[in-house]
Amino acid sequence: MQLTLCLTRARRIAAERTAMIYAERKKTWAQVEERVARLAGALRALGLGVEDRLIVLGHSSDRFLEALYAAMWAGGIAAPLSTRATADELDYLFGDLDAKIFVVGDGFEKDAARWRATHGDAPVIYMGEGATPPGFLDFETLLREAAPIADAARRGDDTAAIFYTGGTTGRPKGVMLTHTNLHSNAINGIFHLRQREGAVILHAGPLYHVAAASRIFTVSALAGTHVVIPRFTPEAVFNAVERHRVSMFSSVPTMMSLLLHHPDLGKHDLSSLRMMTYGASPMPEALIVELMEKLPHVAFAQAYGMTELSPACTFLETQDHTLAPDKRGLLRSAGRPTIGCDIKIVGPDDCELPLGEIGEIVAAGPIVMKGYWRQPEASAQALRGGYMHTGDLGYMDAQGFVYVVDRLKDVIVSGGENVSSVEVENVVSSHPAVRSCAVIGVPDELWGEAVHAEVVLRDGASASEAEIIAFARDRLAHFKAPRSISFRDEMPMSGANKILKSELRKPFWAGRTRAVN
Amino acid sequence: MQLTLCLTRARRIAAERTAMIYAERKKTWAQVEERVARLAGALRALGLGVEDRLIVLGHSSDRFLEALYAAMWAGGIAAPLSTRATADELDYLFGDLDAKIFVVGDGFEKDAARWRATHGDAPVIYMGEGATPPGFLDFETLLREAAPIADAARRGDDTAAIFYTGGTTGRPKGVMLTHTNLHSNAINGIFHLRQREGAVILHAGPLYHVAAASRIFTVSALAGTHVVIPRFTPEAVFNAVERHRVSMFSSVPTMMSLLLHHPDLGKHDLSSLRMMTYGASPMPEALIVELMEKLPHVAFAQAYGMTELSPACTFLETQDHTLAPDKRGLLRSAGRPTIGCDIKIVGPDDCELPLGEIGEIVAAGPIVMKGYWRQPEASAQALRGGYMHTGDLGYMDAQGFVYVVDRLKDVIVSGGENVSSVEVENVVSSHPAVRSCAVIGVPDELWGEAVHAEVVLRDGASASEAEIIAFARDRLAHFKAPRSISFRDEMPMSGANKILKSELRKPFWAGRTRAVN
Repeated sequence: MQLTLCLTRARRIAAERTAMIYAERKKTWAQVEERVARLAGALRALGLGVEDRLIVLGHSSDRFLEALYAAMWAGGIAAPLSTRATADELDYLFGDLDAKIFVVGDGFEKDAARWRATHGDAPVIYMGEGATPPGFLDFETLLREAAPIADAARRGDDTAAIFYTGGTTGRPKGVMLTHTNLHSNAINGIFHLRQREGAVILHAGPLYHVAAASRIFTVSALAGTHVVIPRFTPEAVFNAVERHRVSMFSSVPTMMSLLLHHPDLGKHDLSSLRMMTYGASPMPEALIVELMEKLPHVAFAQAYGMTELSPACTFLETQDHTLAPDKRGLLRSAGRPTIGCDIKIVGPDDCELPLGEIGEIVAAGPIVMKGYWRQPEASAQALRGGYMHTGDLGYMDAQGFVYVVDRLKDVIVSGGENVSSVEVENVVSSHPAVRSCAVIGVPDELWGEAVHAEVVLRDGASASEAEIIAFARDRLAHFKAPRSISFRDEMPMSGANKILKSELRKPFWAGRTRAVN
Repeated sequence: MQLTLCLTRARRIAAERTAMIYAERKKTWAQVEERVARLAGALRALGLGVEDRLIVLGHSSDRFLEALYAAMWAGGIAAPLSTRATADELDYLFGDLDAKIFVVGDGFEKDAARWRATHGDAPVIYMGEGATPPGFLDFETLLREAAPIADAARRGDDTAAIFYTGGTTGRPKGVMLTHTNLHSNAINGIFHLRQREGAVILHAGPLYHVAAASRIFTVSALAGTHVVIPRFTPEAVFNAVERHRVSMFSSVPTMMSLLLHHPDLGKHDLSSLRMMTYGASPMPEALIVELMEKLPHVAFAQAYGMTELSPACTFLETQDHTLAPDKRGLLRSAGRPTIGCDIKIVGPDDCELPLGEIGEIVAAGPIVMKGYWRQPEASAQALRGGYMHTGDLGYMDAQGFVYVVDRLKDVIVSGGENVSSVEVENVVSSHPAVRSCAVIGVPDELWGEAVHAEVVLRDGASASEAEIIAFARDRLAHFKAPRSISFRDEMPMSGANKILKSELRKPFWAGRTRAVN
């Protein structure tokens, strides 16, 4: 398990195949391996030693990929940071990482300059498309002038990258993913998504996020072609698929919805597309059914997991995406444990629960993170018993299909009853006027928590609070139906395009503390 | 990478699927996981601690598989020994391994008793089909009475098994293969052989050999069905394929030839067979062409490697098995590096040679052994520079196809010229009267070594020494053609069904030393 070895293998078997495409730039595998070895030479010369961190902050590009690989090739650890983080958040991450080198893209020059000022004028490499700002090193010049070095051959349990998670509770935690973690996830994806050598794969999501970043290693293992767009827009995806004959990309339900409902959907040749995967947040059944009907030549698969699982611990494979009445219920499942991995459902005492009972989903296997960066206690807690504790509630059926019920912390406790926010969201979302909804618990004198829904209506549609509550009461046990609704123009989203329920809860809980947070 | 986790996953996703078939015994995955956990409990109670060795000696069976897994589940190291080893050879291995427990099959009771006598009456478990010999423990009784234990969860670079190699030069060496090694090889096979969940795979070769043993982990990772026969015979293979609807098995060219030329070939329903793989020795082109023509519904693939590579470092995939004139030359190739692995061709100084030049084949990746058991110097030598030195000579083309020219030590040095024994064998084998042949160097006063061929003629065919030499001289440079021929009834074969050239050389080299041995 040595992520960089896949670059060398790709060069051996497909030296002249296109390895990376970004805007008008195309590079072959022979060029990419050479560039990574040179850039690694430059990083080494700039002082990057074994396990030293290299920050990458910027929108996705071919150079972003090269920077990640070069950090590993030189023996270091790549640390891509969120382009959505605030300056305060970044400053916390800068301190936490204690990095040696910073690679920055367009729009984040000030952050890099601030980092540099507090890190003894340490090197900042500019990977953007404009003129290199004063004091920064130019990516291409550096690469051109450097001597290539031999692969440091970090492998196995050596940390390859640090990705920061959520931070919906407390400060973000750095997740240390090893070469084995990321390579195993890549190989698992290849198996479950039935990918073959030379696949042309679009990185549609932001590369600082593990969902998109982990796919990098799938593409390289396949000696395939990386197609990179700077940021997700439906137009950019349609153009990239059509122009570069993309065979697969991964996305989240929100992105899929934007693509499906975009007026240009029918105007592009998407016939090269063989596979679309989704994950990171629950998929409304109506949306996946519509996708399957409108894009019959595309196979669909779902991945479920979290950063700490590199990230996928289950796949709902294509053969389980069926509209056949007897198997359609599978669409509500997150799928089965990935090859080489195990999943079980445990109670609060960590004992395995009987089949079908709801408990915390825990996962073991080569995809489980090494630990949280500089947080041995949090690591031990999350990994107790050799299984990663996901914080998700779910159950498993006799065929190993996992059903995610809710985030542990998103469960609403109302009058002593547990209410799954996801179950309520599924019902409210099926109202014809509702585009999206998020259900949270809000403080209630009588019940402890009351069920509350935040709703975004479809363009041009209308529905009153009373109508939606009545709609929900017709379809849910009375205690599960929302007692109040707020309407909003859009949802607060995370970098992974998940609805930030913590943000929605804030105004209700100001000055109070939830039992589970 | 935790081999035992695949048993648990298989039970979760396919508890009632048939996991193992041997003679009239069938077991589900739920049963197999339970039995392995119980047997591991028994082994633990008998004193098997972490990294303690457990010897398995016997013909292939379902219990053989269970014993291997139970050793790992209990935290120990499985050490399957060759059923073809002599008592002297076994005694050497017994001493080298210093094992805690011995699992023995029918026919090897005396060896186990001898081991026991010299190991302080340590436990011997009888896995055979008859009555348990006095003093031995009965496999089923032990298992029934033991309490299951939790998986010791050995993983990654922990040694899972020790397999002994050749010993054509000096004593056999124990090859330590880790959980990562064997799992990586399993997953690589799944990718390159296009296997899917639930495959029904026949273990046609002896399970003490890494070629068959490594396939165990492929089947379990797929939650497939292990079909086990005690020993290879064409009849046993035909019957197993037909009766259990086998979808794949692996073999060596000798086995394939026996199957192809067996009078019963046409009498069995082999329609379930989708894939046959071969390896371990060079495949005569005429044989693979005949197989492809006679079994058009079967896909073929070749694996190349060695015990130290878990064992496959290349695959020649199905799409490269073609009779199309422009690609037919690929049939002479061993294929391309497996996913996640690298192969290069180096000179005597370990520097990489230019494309197309002949040198030693070296391989890197997660399949490379941890080292030789208790031989740190030999390990360091074999693994220098992070690459396993195969001892095979070959070259690579611009698409990464590896062509194995010969074993380094089988190259004949005649009058200062290097002669590839394989090249000469290919020509002599194409003589219509020749069934098989092996070419070796024999001492020659004038030339240092002279080219000599040992030949087995086809039944009923005849050819003189002079005829075959003339045939070879018409097709080879003069210095490459054999100068002498010996006829024999059969070739001395290794447990892996490779011709033992060391045995053929012995009478010629008695009292002398070859430069390369």
